[in-house]
Amino acid sequence: MKKAIVLLAKGFEEVEALTVVDVLRRGGVHCITCSIDGEEEVLGSHSIHVKANNLLEKVDVNKYDAVVIPGGMPGASNLRDSEKVIELVKKFNKENKIVAAICAGPIVLGRAGVLDGKKGTSYPGFEEQLGEVVYSEDMVVQDGNIITSRGPATAIHFAFKILESLEGIKIAENLREAMLLNFVENDILKNKI
Amino acid sequence: MKKAIVLLAKGFEEVEALTVVDVLRRGGVHCITCSIDGEEEVLGSHSIHVKANNLLEKVDVNKYDAVVIPGGMPGASNLRDSEKVIELVKKFNKENKIVAAICAGPIVLGRAGVLDGKKGTSYPGFEEQLGEVVYSEDMVVQDGNIITSRGPATAIHFAFKILESLEGIKIAENLREAMLLNFVENDILKNKI
Repeated sequence: MKKAIVLLAKGFEEVEALTVVDVLRRGGVHCITCSIDGEEEVLGSHSIHVKANNLLEKVDVNKYDAVVIPGGMPGASNLRDSEKVIELVKKFNKENKIVAAICAGPIVLGRAGVLDGKKGTSYPGFEEQLGEVVYSEDMVVQDGNIITSRGPATAIHFAFKILESLEGIKIAENLREAMLLNFVENDILKNKI
Repeated sequence: MKKAIVLLAKGFEEVEALTVVDVLRRGGVHCITCSIDGEEEVLGSHSIHVKANNLLEKVDVNKYDAVVIPGGMPGASNLRDSEKVIELVKKFNKENKIVAAICAGPIVLGRAGVLDGKKGTSYPGFEEQLGEVVYSEDMVVQDGNIITSRGPATAIHFAFKILESLEGIKIAENLREAMLLNFVENDILKNKI
């Protein structure tokens, strides 16, 4: 069973973090939320209180295949300023494990230096904090083990790219149907053309 | 200031409930989550623990302009089987306040009888539990004060329709830009045509 860690710090963006948890769990990934704040209850950037599954310092990260960094402020800067988080991102990148970040989250990858020479994206305005990234404006960008995405409305697309990387296209495609994502895309096309 | 209640019962769908909370709060609505389970901590259908802002029995519902019912199982059936919730839905409907439900959530509206003769939708398969609804397969359906929607991937579109009804099109449009929803729709169009 594939395993993923979603990191939570005070001020995390709730939709970006929890859409990933929801999609990965539906897709059969063992996905846990880990607080970096020393306590399980973490307050999101829109005042939603979520109880994390564990504290980062208590988790054996070697058992995990992916780390996911949500946006939100000051959540993303809190993650960026944590030495433990930066070490974890560097370690997972070195081991070619999935390192994923969305919205303001890629600033963590920027500080860790893992975007240098890689294609990546972020919420508009964070381009200068991503190191030597090859900046893209696509909704979701994958370059090898690195997955980045743009913001709240792209969270579900980001989540599905992570799921696809962990569990394969077939599981992702079936879940896209079940969660009505294909339906939404077809509806948008139908109404705009 | 407009005020909305998002109802939480054990087994609520996290993305459907919390996307609405996130969008409404960003849009300036005083939005609270209310547990119907007698305790503030509520476990979602994908095992995310959320602390509600209040218990339904402690809230003066007369001060609120909208009630929102997320899907998820058994969350939606727990809401449907609550007399207090059914009374609230009937009362808000009678007062022409916004009554909104997504995914399996419209079964609550079905039991309350507020969809009879109205256009509505739900997650596929719940059509028979909606009373005398005029069933639609659109992503989001509004008929007067009643707003219904289809499932997890339509949650953000549902949330914006509620925001638009409470705060007007201009606030909703500005927030669609900020949360990148227009960007996503344009990207889908660009890549599929």
